[in-house]
Amino acid sequence: MDELAQRILKDGRVLNENVLKVDSFLNHQVDVRLIDQIGQTFFEHFRNRGINKILTVEASGISVACSVARCFHVPMVFARKNQSLVLNNDLFTAEVFSFTKQQKLQIFVRKQFIEPCDRVLLVDDFLARGEALKGLADIVKQSGATLIGAGIVIEKVFQDGGKRAREFGLEVYSLVQIASLDKNQIQFC
Amino acid sequence: MDELAQRILKDGRVLNENVLKVDSFLNHQVDVRLIDQIGQTFFEHFRNRGINKILTVEASGISVACSVARCFHVPMVFARKNQSLVLNNDLFTAEVFSFTKQQKLQIFVRKQFIEPCDRVLLVDDFLARGEALKGLADIVKQSGATLIGAGIVIEKVFQDGGKRAREFGLEVYSLVQIASLDKNQIQFC
Repeated sequence: MDELAQRILKDGRVLNENVLKVDSFLNHQVDVRLIDQIGQTFFEHFRNRGINKILTVEASGISVACSVARCFHVPMVFARKNQSLVLNNDLFTAEVFSFTKQQKLQIFVRKQFIEPCDRVLLVDDFLARGEALKGLADIVKQSGATLIGAGIVIEKVFQDGGKRAREFGLEVYSLVQIASLDKNQIQFC
Repeated sequence: MDELAQRILKDGRVLNENVLKVDSFLNHQVDVRLIDQIGQTFFEHFRNRGINKILTVEASGISVACSVARCFHVPMVFARKNQSLVLNNDLFTAEVFSFTKQQKLQIFVRKQFIEPCDRVLLVDDFLARGEALKGLADIVKQSGATLIGAGIVIEKVFQDGGKRAREFGLEVYSLVQIASLDKNQIQFC
């Protein structure tokens, strides 16, 4: 995804050594043509793997996940967030720590939307410390479905989430990998 | 949108006289084929009006708004939610009361994403009491942009938000209008 890397260099804003803002085209304002290209790229990588469900978490993952689901002709499910979830037998839940918000969140998916026969691809806009990905993988595990892999738009390699996910056997396919944001510079791997 | 109405009758769940759940195809699990048809229908209604931006609010509006934006070949912007927003000169903000969560929320959009020259179509999955729509319209007004109208997937007419929005001159185009959910029955207008 050369175009994505170019767009990040052109429109991304480095706020500090940990935070890259891409809110002008990916997760606040959305360039639909670009996310459709991203969806097609994930499709080409993961096709022929029997994927029948795309799973993401609200809110930033939804637009990309829709584009991926369109290519696969399968439903998209987004996990919802809640700070204080009432226990409910109809839901798979997982706890996720948000470093951005410095708080624990519950994410949940209604059980009937992920079934044991499903073959699930996770999709998200960013992979940093891997908290969201871990929560989503946990939900897939609870459901008994098969986790095929994860498609990530931007991986911040220096924050280790991708490394740990791969160590645990998850196939993580990132379109762009960022080695460092030090000195206000975006360094790709 | 006969297909949408049929789908609501088939898969919608009436929780009580105020709440209709359509989370198996619209706002938790998403049927991408259906939301693309919805997007196309909004496009056909609002085409030739010079719309150059689609605005919604996270999270449930995002998937539909993406489909609409794809038809118009324009960017989609989703307002973000926050419970306690730090004052920030870069943002347009509005206060929205969530009846579902029984709490006030701030919604915000970065100023550079809605400019005075823009012609904006609002999109959302539900219109009930109109709180979200009012907040989005307020943000458009602050920006100086032109508000063309609102495309709503499901309007709960008995909750009056649509009526009030139309009284204030906003063109609200709802694909399905629900007159009542009394006695566990979905009554369309």
